[in-house]
Amino acid sequence: MKNNHFRTVNPSTNKNIPIDYPQASIEEVNQSVILAKDAFISYRGKSQIQRAAFLRQIIVCLNNLKEEIISICHLETALPLGRLEGEFLRTTGQISMFADLLENGSWVDAIIDTAQPDRKPTPRVDLRQMLIPLGPVAVFGASNFPLAFSVAGGDTISALASGCTVVVKSHPEHPGTSKFLANAITDALSLCDLPEAVFQLLQGDTHQLGAELVQHPEIKAVGFTGSFSGGKALFDLANQRPEPIPVFAEMGSVNPVLILPNTLASNGDEIAKGLAQSVSLGVGQFCTNPGLVFFVDSEGSDEFLTTLDKLVQEIPSATMLSPSISGNYKIGLTRLKRTPKLTSVTKGIESEDANCARTEFFITDFDTFCSIDYLSEEVFGPVSLLVSVSEEQINSIPRQLAGQLTASIFGDPQDLIRYKHSIESITHLVGRIIINGYPTGVEVTHAMVHGGPFPATTQVQSTSVGTQAIRRFTRPVCYQNFTQDLLPDELKDDNPLMISRKINGIIK
Amino acid sequence: MKNNHFRTVNPSTNKNIPIDYPQASIEEVNQSVILAKDAFISYRGKSQIQRAAFLRQIIVCLNNLKEEIISICHLETALPLGRLEGEFLRTTGQISMFADLLENGSWVDAIIDTAQPDRKPTPRVDLRQMLIPLGPVAVFGASNFPLAFSVAGGDTISALASGCTVVVKSHPEHPGTSKFLANAITDALSLCDLPEAVFQLLQGDTHQLGAELVQHPEIKAVGFTGSFSGGKALFDLANQRPEPIPVFAEMGSVNPVLILPNTLASNGDEIAKGLAQSVSLGVGQFCTNPGLVFFVDSEGSDEFLTTLDKLVQEIPSATMLSPSISGNYKIGLTRLKRTPKLTSVTKGIESEDANCARTEFFITDFDTFCSIDYLSEEVFGPVSLLVSVSEEQINSIPRQLAGQLTASIFGDPQDLIRYKHSIESITHLVGRIIINGYPTGVEVTHAMVHGGPFPATTQVQSTSVGTQAIRRFTRPVCYQNFTQDLLPDELKDDNPLMISRKINGIIK
Repeated sequence: MKNNHFRTVNPSTNKNIPIDYPQASIEEVNQSVILAKDAFISYRGKSQIQRAAFLRQIIVCLNNLKEEIISICHLETALPLGRLEGEFLRTTGQISMFADLLENGSWVDAIIDTAQPDRKPTPRVDLRQMLIPLGPVAVFGASNFPLAFSVAGGDTISALASGCTVVVKSHPEHPGTSKFLANAITDALSLCDLPEAVFQLLQGDTHQLGAELVQHPEIKAVGFTGSFSGGKALFDLANQRPEPIPVFAEMGSVNPVLILPNTLASNGDEIAKGLAQSVSLGVGQFCTNPGLVFFVDSEGSDEFLTTLDKLVQEIPSATMLSPSISGNYKIGLTRLKRTPKLTSVTKGIESEDANCARTEFFITDFDTFCSIDYLSEEVFGPVSLLVSVSEEQINSIPRQLAGQLTASIFGDPQDLIRYKHSIESITHLVGRIIINGYPTGVEVTHAMVHGGPFPATTQVQSTSVGTQAIRRFTRPVCYQNFTQDLLPDELKDDNPLMISRKINGIIK
Repeated sequence: MKNNHFRTVNPSTNKNIPIDYPQASIEEVNQSVILAKDAFISYRGKSQIQRAAFLRQIIVCLNNLKEEIISICHLETALPLGRLEGEFLRTTGQISMFADLLENGSWVDAIIDTAQPDRKPTPRVDLRQMLIPLGPVAVFGASNFPLAFSVAGGDTISALASGCTVVVKSHPEHPGTSKFLANAITDALSLCDLPEAVFQLLQGDTHQLGAELVQHPEIKAVGFTGSFSGGKALFDLANQRPEPIPVFAEMGSVNPVLILPNTLASNGDEIAKGLAQSVSLGVGQFCTNPGLVFFVDSEGSDEFLTTLDKLVQEIPSATMLSPSISGNYKIGLTRLKRTPKLTSVTKGIESEDANCARTEFFITDFDTFCSIDYLSEEVFGPVSLLVSVSEEQINSIPRQLAGQLTASIFGDPQDLIRYKHSIESITHLVGRIIINGYPTGVEVTHAMVHGGPFPATTQVQSTSVGTQAIRRFTRPVCYQNFTQDLLPDELKDDNPLMISRKINGIIK
């Protein structure tokens, strides 16, 4: 690492923001992880109630810094203030959700099999199981959710909720935002009398920094949201360690949409309107952006395309998150524009402002789609590829798709029943399957799955959004023949936390 | 693969068993997986009740072949008939446990967040989550549990219970046993009118066979029980695939035992008796064999060692599972015998019978233990290393240990409280922590964890024994805005399966 400091760019002006952020050194990575390990030994012993209080204190501290956070974030990301207000609420909302989860306490999946001393031929011992935290976790902040999936975002908070300590490698494109978010967590730690190394921030704009962090022997799991190349590189590093560790990398997807035959005729306008909105939302910079739309060339499809074109004309260009994202978007668009048998559905005027992008739709047929690999790959930004298919080709669609975060199916009740098997096959490719709706707008609830088969993520068995995200940073442990005073409260006979538990096979 | 057939050896006589088993070809691997993929599309749609009926039918078919299975298994493994009777019961017992689990149905972790159409500023959609099967699973049979962790063992049955189809690569040292076990499952499939490719057996004695299986793009997960080198090789192959897949490899451990200061004086005889039994059980061929015992050099330790020696004299030599296991055991013993500052506690007479092993204990001090890496590695067989420590050294023990399946702590109530922090540190290294008991005798229950941090397993978040083992072959999927008729029964409003579910955050 040559430079001791780094800067970021204001994407609206394409000029440097004149603030120097210190670049973390390799020694600092090492030191942070050692401290995180020591802090873990103390933090893992805190009760769920103590951890909930800490999370609630983070909300207070974030609210104290809200104005500063949103101002600098707007400067660093060009995301509109309204969107950032919303994302801020989403961020504190999900912290509150994890605090609720801890106060309820049942998420640890307590399982108790009581002793059977008189069992023949051998007695059965007392066995009790619950989830415990893994250890220090490395979290990589995303660029596209600078609040909700960044320093104080879902990965960090679910890891802290589970009892893990966290070292964040923040995204280098919003270092000021990251610093304020980190300050809020650090303030909360201090106010709650918790070790300051429960949470640490490392800043820098080199890949080496993240690589060193993931390879440190005391890091026990990794949370990541970002590009395929970034996530896959960390996954490979983690598996090549002397002690491999789990990497929960959410790497995006094209989120295919399938519009079944009868639907365009009856509901084409509505679908076009939703599609235009979903693709352009946040300048298309969502992991759940619908980048691929299969529709049956049928009565209503011409009108659908015309409506779509008309709607897209009305969508203003907008600034993307950074010059690199905007640059990659342009490269992706250029490739699509140069692809034979692909035509542009939408004819608009390109903005000349720095890093600006406008919503675009392309169209092709199923055979062309099947013959060119990159057409099923994500282009990060407000673009979507429409693929016209015949009714006979619908059943072949699942075979053309890799793992996805989501898929959406539009259909009337008859079509949905008729294509039930295709919907089932698509379900087995995705983390979330949606009927008559678009994938953007990921609810933060218990039932959400924001995950899916590779290459959408590196860990098909997990979600990075919703309460179940806490499971990523835990593992089950079994306590055999423990006395009551040595057991964690969650597993004691008298159930002092009043949590729901499975006792001898029955949930109580 | 040069040979079309392979044979195995009777370990008691060291002679070939004159039966030729056909070696599966690469084409057969490919064909099997394609068939398993097709069968998955049908099998995943079966109800839990249908899958439970299939499992119960497997028990019936196994019982029909019980005599043949036990006879040939005895011939191929030298395991005593009584042990095999017990293991057979354990095998059918765990199948029955998974059938119970399916009949109950609640294991799918159904979570329902109902729609809030009036929520401001945006309505909340209906979201429902449950676990679904991953797809075709490759299972590698273990040598040391030729029934309970082999063709019809825990990995296969938990995968079948989850709705996955299974291709087993059986252990080449008990091909006859494997064939009979496979026949039972195939019979059950036929009797239940299920596709025959729901379960398939591949036999062979080359590594290439297993490597091809794990690398096949349609295999979606791997279950393995065996050596570190075997499990780690499969793990690496699986991670290097274009689409990496989870590998649940249980690779053994030294299962450390810690005897706290006051215990030997008051209870030394009992502890020595249990230790001699646990180490010699099954000729030490258990993953949970206690291979490492830390004890405090104190009042009672001399008597403890004398008692241990006396008890070990009474333990007869016994035949190990195979020439290769017996050969490796001898290599491991020789290394220990040649290690300076290690002395043999037990003086017995070695049997001259083929592949026979006797129980052995070695002793050393903590400094020697810490200075020689291989002393903390598993020697598969009836051997254990005693390490005398001072009271001051107890807190340093966790730092000397890698991930383990189990650890056992012996102590009186005072010592257990006094060393609470060391016990907690050890807990974070293991899958199961045991107070005043030995790790052998793994109960098959809900609360069991047979797993643990690397290198004990390649997947710290799972267990291969107990009902939770089913989770390995599943992942959560979220159904958004589904109509009642399209939802799986587990997620329908009227709860036709009467399972326990989390609805809007409350378990019902």
